[in-house]
Amino acid sequence: MKVSIVSIGNELLSGRTVDTNAAWLAAEMLALNTPVVSGYIVGDEVERIVRTLRAACEDADVVLVTGGLGPTEDDLTREALAALLGVQLVFHQDLLDRIAGFFTALGRTMAATNRRQAYLPAGAQALHNSVGTAPGIAAQREHRRIFAMPGVPSEMQRMFTDGIKPTLKALNAGQHIVVRKLQCCGTGESNIAQVVGPLMARGRNPLINSTASQGVVTMHIIATAPSEGEALGMARSDEQLLREMLGPAVFGVEDQTLAEVVGGMLAARGMTLATAESCTGGLLAKLITDVPGASRYFLQSWVTYSNQAKTALLGVPTALIAEHGAVSQQVAEAMALGARKAAAADYAIAITGIAGPDGGSSEKPLGLVYIALAANDRLYCRRCEFGQPRAAVRLRAATTALDILRQELAG
Amino acid sequence: MKVSIVSIGNELLSGRTVDTNAAWLAAEMLALNTPVVSGYIVGDEVERIVRTLRAACEDADVVLVTGGLGPTEDDLTREALAALLGVQLVFHQDLLDRIAGFFTALGRTMAATNRRQAYLPAGAQALHNSVGTAPGIAAQREHRRIFAMPGVPSEMQRMFTDGIKPTLKALNAGQHIVVRKLQCCGTGESNIAQVVGPLMARGRNPLINSTASQGVVTMHIIATAPSEGEALGMARSDEQLLREMLGPAVFGVEDQTLAEVVGGMLAARGMTLATAESCTGGLLAKLITDVPGASRYFLQSWVTYSNQAKTALLGVPTALIAEHGAVSQQVAEAMALGARKAAAADYAIAITGIAGPDGGSSEKPLGLVYIALAANDRLYCRRCEFGQPRAAVRLRAATTALDILRQELAG
Repeated sequence: MKVSIVSIGNELLSGRTVDTNAAWLAAEMLALNTPVVSGYIVGDEVERIVRTLRAACEDADVVLVTGGLGPTEDDLTREALAALLGVQLVFHQDLLDRIAGFFTALGRTMAATNRRQAYLPAGAQALHNSVGTAPGIAAQREHRRIFAMPGVPSEMQRMFTDGIKPTLKALNAGQHIVVRKLQCCGTGESNIAQVVGPLMARGRNPLINSTASQGVVTMHIIATAPSEGEALGMARSDEQLLREMLGPAVFGVEDQTLAEVVGGMLAARGMTLATAESCTGGLLAKLITDVPGASRYFLQSWVTYSNQAKTALLGVPTALIAEHGAVSQQVAEAMALGARKAAAADYAIAITGIAGPDGGSSEKPLGLVYIALAANDRLYCRRCEFGQPRAAVRLRAATTALDILRQELAG
Repeated sequence: MKVSIVSIGNELLSGRTVDTNAAWLAAEMLALNTPVVSGYIVGDEVERIVRTLRAACEDADVVLVTGGLGPTEDDLTREALAALLGVQLVFHQDLLDRIAGFFTALGRTMAATNRRQAYLPAGAQALHNSVGTAPGIAAQREHRRIFAMPGVPSEMQRMFTDGIKPTLKALNAGQHIVVRKLQCCGTGESNIAQVVGPLMARGRNPLINSTASQGVVTMHIIATAPSEGEALGMARSDEQLLREMLGPAVFGVEDQTLAEVVGGMLAARGMTLATAESCTGGLLAKLITDVPGASRYFLQSWVTYSNQAKTALLGVPTALIAEHGAVSQQVAEAMALGARKAAAADYAIAITGIAGPDGGSSEKPLGLVYIALAANDRLYCRRCEFGQPRAAVRLRAATTALDILRQELAG
C-alpha cells in the first residue's frame, strides 16, 4: 500500500503558512510502515485540484487530502472531489444539523455560508469532526481510497486518528505492525544517532528512527511480522536494547509528555509542586497545567517578572538582587526557597534568565538561564546557556526545569 | 510568469523534516508578485523526480527545486535533471577545485564522494554556494527556467537571494504588488466572510482573503498595479473599507499579536497589568511575556490552581468559594480585585473555569470560563462557554481575556 498526500490552500503557496500537515501525516504513515511516495501542494482552484488529485491517484493507493473544507467560496475540495469522481454534490440535512449544533453549543449563530459544509459528493461518506464544523470526506475512485480532512491541524489530527487510521490499519492486510515510541530528553538527536548507531539502519526490521521537537527526541520502533504477537515481541526486545543504550535519557513512552511523566511521579508519591518564573513568564506553569488533573500535585505559581515582585511575593532580599543581579544563581535559589515556603509545597522550581532579544552582556549573555530546585533537604541550581531566539530560550528553559525535577524524583 | 516549487528528499516524505523551504520560497515569490501555482514533494528516486519535474514544467515558467544535490548516492537531482533534459552529466574540474577548497579552508579532507558534486547536466550552469559544498544548477527546458538549490535552508536561502532572485526580478517585467494584513478577533472566519462578502470575490484586485488560527482571523489585502504607489493606494483604500466593515474586530496590522497590541496600549498609557489564572494555568502570562519588553507594563501573575492558593494569595474569601464555587462570577471578580490590589497594578485580569476533560456538570458545563477585569473604577466579568477540548478552552480563554482588556483600553 502506498500513500500520496495533497495539501490544498492558497496560504500554502503564498508562504503565509508552512505545510505542517503533510509532515504530520507522513510521520503517522511511517508508524503504519506505509510509504508516502509523493506530496502535492495546490492552491484554491478547482481545475488544478482535480488535476492534482488525479496525479496523486496515479502515484498511490490511498490519497490523504487536507484543506479546502471550510465554509468560504475559496474552499473547493468538495467541488473538486465531485468533479474527479464525476458525480454531483448532494445536500445532507443531518450534517447541517450537526454543524448548526456546533454553533449553538458555543452560543453563536451559524453563518449562512456554513451550509456549504453540509454537501458531499454523491456516494461519499462524511467523516465526523469532533473539534470543528467541517466534516471530512471519505471517497473511493476505482480501487483508490481518498480521505479529505480539514486544514486546521488540530481538527485534521483528531479526524485522522479517530476516523481514518483504523481504516488504513485494516487495509494493511497480512502484516501486523507494532509501533512503540520512546520519549527522550537531555540529549540531542545526533548524539542519540551516534549512540544507537547501527540499529537505525535502513531496511532493518524493526525499523528504528527518530524525530526531534522542542528538546524532546522521539525514537520510533516499527516492528513488522506475520502475527501481532511476533511483532510485539520484536518491538519489546528492541525497546529493551534502546533503554540500555540511552539510560536515563528515556523519560516516557508513546505520547507521554515530560510534564505528564513528572506529574505522574509527583501524584504517585503524594508530593506537591509550586513554581516561580521570571523569564519563562508562565510557560512552565502552562506546560504543567496542560496535563488534566494537574491540580492533584500542582499548588500554585508566581510569575515574578519585576524585581519588586520577586521581593514582595517570594521574599528575595533586595540586597541579593542588587549584589548578584536578578539573573544569578543566588536569586534563582532564593526564588525557589521562597516559593517552596510560601506554597508549603514539597518541591519548588524557579527560573530566572535573559530570554532576549535585548538585555545580554559579555558576562551574562542572551539565553543565560538559572534553574533552581528546592526540596526538603536539598537545593540544586543549574546554569544553562540556550542562545537565541527568545521563544526557544523560554521553551528549553521550561523543558530543562521539568527534566531536572524528573531526575530528582527518579533519584 | 508562474512558479512551481519541487522539494526533493525522503526525509520530507517520512515526516522527519517539515518542508519549510517551500514556504520560504513561496513568501519570496509573493514579494516578487509572482504566483506560485503548485508545490511537489518527491523522494530520492530518479524516475519519480523526472516525472515530477516534468509536471512542474507543465504548471509553470520557472521551477524552483530544493534538495538532492549532496554528495551521497541518495542525492539524485543532477541525474534527474540530465534525464529530463535528455543530456549527459559533464565533469567540471573548476567546480571540483572549488569544492576541495571549501574543505581545505575548514582544515578538513574532502571525501571521494564529493566528486559527484562537480558534475552538471550538459549545457547547464553552476550556481555558486557560498555557505556549503553543493553547487546549484541553472538549466533551461524550452522556455522554462529550472533552478536547483541545496536542501539545507541556510544554503538554499543564500543561493536564492544572491544567485536566483536577481534573475527572476529581471524576468518579471512591470508589476508591483503590495500586501497588507489586518488582524481581527472576537468574531469567526465565516462571520467575517459574511460581512465582507463581495470584497472577497476571486479575481478581484486587490485580492482579499482570510486565514484563521487560534481565534484570530487574518485578512490579507493583495494589490497589484503597474507602479508601487498605485498598488499602495489600492491596498490602503481597501484597508479603509475593511476597517469600516469590521469595526472594533480589527486589532492590528501585519504580524502583530493580540498580546503585542495590548502591551503597546498599556506601555503608551504608562499603565501596568497583573494577572491571576486558574484554569489557564499560566498561559495568559506566557502569551503576555512572549512579547519582548513586556516588563515595561507586566508586573506579575499568580497561578492559583488550588482554592487554598486563591484565598492565601489573592484574598478570595473561603465563604465565597464555598457558596458560589471556584468557577463563578463572584470568585473571578474577587481574584481580579485581589490581584490588582496585591500587585498595585492599574489593571488585573482573572480567569477561572473548567478546562476539562473532567469536572463539568449540567449547571457548569465543561468549557465554562469566567473572565474578570478589574480597573480603577470598574469591575467587569464575562461568562463564556468554550466547549472542548482542554487545550482549545485554555487558548480561547486567554485570547478572550486579552481582547477584553484591549476593548477596555480602546474605550
